Amino acid sequence: MSGSEVRADVWIHEYITPWDIYSHGVARTLAYRRTPYQEMYIIETGAYGKALVLDGKWQSSTADEFLYHEPLVHPALLLHPTPRSVLILGGGEGATAREALRWKSMQRIVMIDIDGEVVAACREHLGEMHRGAFDDPRVELVIQDALAYLDDARQTFDVIISDLSDPIEEGPSFKLFTREYFEKARAALAPGGVFVVQAGPVSPVEMQLHCRLASTLRSVFAHTASLTTFVPTYAAPWSFIIGHDRPIDTRPDPAETDRRLAEQTTGGLRMLDGVTLLGLYQLPKHLRAAIAAEKQVYTLAEPPKFFGKGALPPAAGQPG
Amino acid sequence: MSGSEVRADVWIHEYITPWDIYSHGVARTLAYRRTPYQEMYIIETGAYGKALVLDGKWQSSTADEFLYHEPLVHPALLLHPTPRSVLILGGGEGATAREALRWKSMQRIVMIDIDGEVVAACREHLGEMHRGAFDDPRVELVIQDALAYLDDARQTFDVIISDLSDPIEEGPSFKLFTREYFEKARAALAPGGVFVVQAGPVSPVEMQLHCRLASTLRSVFAHTASLTTFVPTYAAPWSFIIGHDRPIDTRPDPAETDRRLAEQTTGGLRMLDGVTLLGLYQLPKHLRAAIAAEKQVYTLAEPPKFFGKGALPPAAGQPG
Amino acid sequence: MSGSEVRADVWIHEYITPWDIYSHGVARTLAYRRTPYQEMYIIETGAYGKALVLDGKWQSSTADEFLYHEPLVHPALLLHPTPRSVLILGGGEGATAREALRWKSMQRIVMIDIDGEVVAACREHLGEMHRGAFDDPRVELVIQDALAYLDDARQTFDVIISDLSDPIEEGPSFKLFTREYFEKARAALAPGGVFVVQAGPVSPVEMQLHCRLASTLRSVFAHTASLTTFVPTYAAPWSFIIGHDRPIDTRPDPAETDRRLAEQTTGGLRMLDGVTLLGLYQLPKHLRAAIAAEKQVYTLAEPPKFFGKGALPPAAGQPG
Amino acid sequence: MSGSEVRADVWIHEYITPWDIYSHGVARTLAYRRTPYQEMYIIETGAYGKALVLDGKWQSSTADEFLYHEPLVHPALLLHPTPRSVLILGGGEGATAREALRWKSMQRIVMIDIDGEVVAACREHLGEMHRGAFDDPRVELVIQDALAYLDDARQTFDVIISDLSDPIEEGPSFKLFTREYFEKARAALAPGGVFVVQAGPVSPVEMQLHCRLASTLRSVFAHTASLTTFVPTYAAPWSFIIGHDRPIDTRPDPAETDRRLAEQTTGGLRMLDGVTLLGLYQLPKHLRAAIAAEKQVYTLAEPPKFFGKGALPPAAGQPG
Repeated sequence: MSGSEVRADVWIHEYITPWDIYSHGVARTLAYRRTPYQEMYIIETGAYGKALVLDGKWQSSTADEFLYHEPLVHPALLLHPTPRSVLILGGGEGATAREALRWKSMQRIVMIDIDGEVVAACREHLGEMHRGAFDDPRVELVIQDALAYLDDARQTFDVIISDLSDPIEEGPSFKLFTREYFEKARAALAPGGVFVVQAGPVSPVEMQLHCRLASTLRSVFAHTASLTTFVPTYAAPWSFIIGHDRPIDTRPDPAETDRRLAEQTTGGLRMLDGVTLLGLYQLPKHLRAAIAAEKQVYTLAEPPKFFGKGALPPAAGQPG
Repeated sequence: MSGSEVRADVWIHEYITPWDIYSHGVARTLAYRRTPYQEMYIIETGAYGKALVLDGKWQSSTADEFLYHEPLVHPALLLHPTPRSVLILGGGEGATAREALRWKSMQRIVMIDIDGEVVAACREHLGEMHRGAFDDPRVELVIQDALAYLDDARQTFDVIISDLSDPIEEGPSFKLFTREYFEKARAALAPGGVFVVQAGPVSPVEMQLHCRLASTLRSVFAHTASLTTFVPTYAAPWSFIIGHDRPIDTRPDPAETDRRLAEQTTGGLRMLDGVTLLGLYQLPKHLRAAIAAEKQVYTLAEPPKFFGKGALPPAAGQPG
Repeated sequence: MSGSEVRADVWIHEYITPWDIYSHGVARTLAYRRTPYQEMYIIETGAYGKALVLDGKWQSSTADEFLYHEPLVHPALLLHPTPRSVLILGGGEGATAREALRWKSMQRIVMIDIDGEVVAACREHLGEMHRGAFDDPRVELVIQDALAYLDDARQTFDVIISDLSDPIEEGPSFKLFTREYFEKARAALAPGGVFVVQAGPVSPVEMQLHCRLASTLRSVFAHTASLTTFVPTYAAPWSFIIGHDRPIDTRPDPAETDRRLAEQTTGGLRMLDGVTLLGLYQLPKHLRAAIAAEKQVYTLAEPPKFFGKGALPPAAGQPG
Repeated sequence: MSGSEVRADVWIHEYITPWDIYSHGVARTLAYRRTPYQEMYIIETGAYGKALVLDGKWQSSTADEFLYHEPLVHPALLLHPTPRSVLILGGGEGATAREALRWKSMQRIVMIDIDGEVVAACREHLGEMHRGAFDDPRVELVIQDALAYLDDARQTFDVIISDLSDPIEEGPSFKLFTREYFEKARAALAPGGVFVVQAGPVSPVEMQLHCRLASTLRSVFAHTASLTTFVPTYAAPWSFIIGHDRPIDTRPDPAETDRRLAEQTTGGLRMLDGVTLLGLYQLPKHLRAAIAAEKQVYTLAEPPKFFGKGALPPAAGQPG
């Protein structure tokens, strides 16, 4: 890219903490919507391709989203012998569905997203992410509140993937990170089903959300396991937690993983294979200790209050 | 405004110089358009009201635009005994027309702007700026290139106001800051007509554009005069230059100005009156000296190359 | 300056308002001190020369400080027929003393600054600002709290210049912007003496400090007058207020001013002359109206609480 | 930390790429030095404790440096049966030495750093990092150019750790990332010795440095292995490469690692244990593929040219 193509007069500022800001220059705005739920930008960045920004918060970029979506989806599906149905809560970019569609056994993917305008814009502008997933006949898109959907769910699924944005206090999703919700998700699993939730950053200065989510999942599922990945634009190691009613092998044989992926998927994974999966499960010592020590459980009465990416300090006092 | 209302994850960064950046937090995006000519945002800021941003460059904000538009318009109109017609080049927000309409003698305002989509968005979202000017029957809006309009102009005007964005090299307007263009503008003036041009910043580290524009106008008009104002969001004193074929009194009697404004306008000016006008003409010593010393004239062969607000340094080298 | 010389990994961020930040890249840090009173940087900038930064707040830069110091000093001295003695409160850079020393009649300048370490660093690194003022035998530097000095002042002065930083609430100087203090300053004036105070920004969104200081000075002096200047790095028009016991001519004849400056000073002024002075006194209409309408007086019981340049919004809530 | 304690008018901006900037607010500057080699700040941050910043580039912070220093040191030492001597190139904070000192067999650590002033400042202000390592009689600090030291090295070492800052082109360290230098390091190893080098970021948009360093090490050592860690303040996964003349087990048994750490060290590791070590060696698929494909070798004739953290785009053109 030559210098003259670069334009960055508009910047997205993410408050990783109140004193540490990660800023991304906007080379070009591809789409802007103000929906009933949120403010959406789809932008072209200088180094990370296109990116989706919701309410000023970075969601994902085409250059590094595979480091998020592959470890969100495949470890859970690998825990099921033949995953045929998946429920995705959130996942508006379509990349989670894209990954699930790689499985040859897949017959039905239901994707629940509250904001149809955002999904439509992603469908139009982020082909690199969804790669046609929305057009696949196995995918059913339901524009609905995930909470309401789970309240009424009549179908069951082999795998349920919670791909929701972080539980900012004023945001719509914080209720979906509570024991009550996880119990509803568990009830919507078919026998042998697997649940996985994106579980926030796990940096030394901010890993409480993960630990409490792990504690909350332990109160619902017989077995849980945490995984960590690294998405550079998140400026922190990121995490997932799997809930399952059967034991989870956190030291899976790489050759066996590779064999299953070769047999059961259509291929095309960029980041995940047997060696990678083994690594994703090996959490560092301090994080394992913090997870084990945490006892608090998120409930509707005591839900998470997350600082999160993008939150802004309150305004200063006025002159007087 | 309480802290919880504040949102600023998106920021407009203006390069006042390559090493000095003025950043404005976007409380809310009111409109976004990608037109054939430019990228437009209309935003709500935290302290300065609503603002128009074109190609990432701050144009004007409702809280301080009167410090720009009043001294752009009224000093020129005061030099004419009974201004009946005005041609505005640029001025998409409608605020320049708004000011000209205050004159009771005004019969016809022609406003030329290249970008109809931007004008439409300003009309919809920036009522505080245009205050209905576009609906006034005396105002004729022409969506056209100002250069082309002047080439073919068959009418003449008592006052011509060049309210164009700064002459960034790649931008569309730099040709409009040359002797050739000023000569065309002069030819479109009625006898006794007055020409005024917004003439950029006049800070100690960046006043060359003003000085060369003054030199260029001197090569076209018998008499010229510079004025300076201060618009806080521009982070530099700002300037205008008037070209006229009659002598310009740069020490106008405040009482006489007040009398004429009272008689000849419908009132409502916030910043400009007799005392203010006297001040606008009194340039500081170093600036007067620089203007007097400048000999270079901008021509189509040697047009301005302005760093300007919002321009960005070229990109860095790549890793290797 | 070529690109390879540019370095800006460290930036000074000024909160002009809580939502508008003016950032200056640090090309090089020339001096750093943590004194008992404040944290000081003297930096080299990319465009504005060297700058003094106290507690993270921009004080002045070599490229544009003359636009502050000349109108601070000379209008007041011109109101005195033969200024022989000046008291400067604050003014650590030495530039205020530099200007006062231009007057041939000057015999004694007492400069009171609380922070000897900052003055020493300015003396060493900011020769462009003080230009040897500290070595002039007419200058007496007293390292003391200005409040304490005025409490005990036994001498009187022809002119007293309050060149203090803005009255941030937690800062040391806010008491010095109250009626009680202005009365002490008045008591330290010789007959016919003149008092001048730097009086903060006067932008449409922040002019309350100026208006209340004007009201406060009116409660102490028989006559007052406001002046405005524009220092680009302050990102707002800036102001001074003069207090005097004789009428102040706010429309001084430029020729007469030039004559007196020629006769009574050694010359060398860059910005100020007769024309400039006339302009400095012509405040815009909205500001004159706001000043006239303001009745509140700052007292020790009700001192100013200024947002000011550089103040930071309080921190955000913590994760939970 | 309460809001009123927060101060962030000075910010460190890191260009992670030319269009992505990670900014850290400076709560307080603890030390500043301009040495013959570089400009140093030791700062207190809001969230990440104290940090060392050299030439505007973030080096390490007390809150997350253990995620860098533990995986830099212990994997290499674990490859040696009884590490008795270590040579550290760079490592001015003393944290690398701190980790090496945990090994009971350790008899001699030679630490080579070019900048004695920086080491002295770290020793004084960053006790949390070095934890007394400089006072340990087994540690010998040599203030010297690492290149010169290796040229004359007469001793050999069980482990050599290259803990140098990234090879910015104008910086002093880029020669130390070449085959010629790695050969000198290899020559300074005792039989069975291990070499390890910090090897830069490994994000999808910037992993070339790592791949070429791996290729370069492969040209010198019989066996090599890459490891990755995540240090949040680096905003990218970070990497190390080990060079050895014996095969490296990249799937080490966690229990055996834990046993050796328990027997051979004094304990106290926060991040690294058997499980963590297993994870560090499991690189993601796309990175392994890129490393395997890279053939270019860095030599003194063709050294690395790294964009790197903190580098700044060249300045923009001037007004004209």
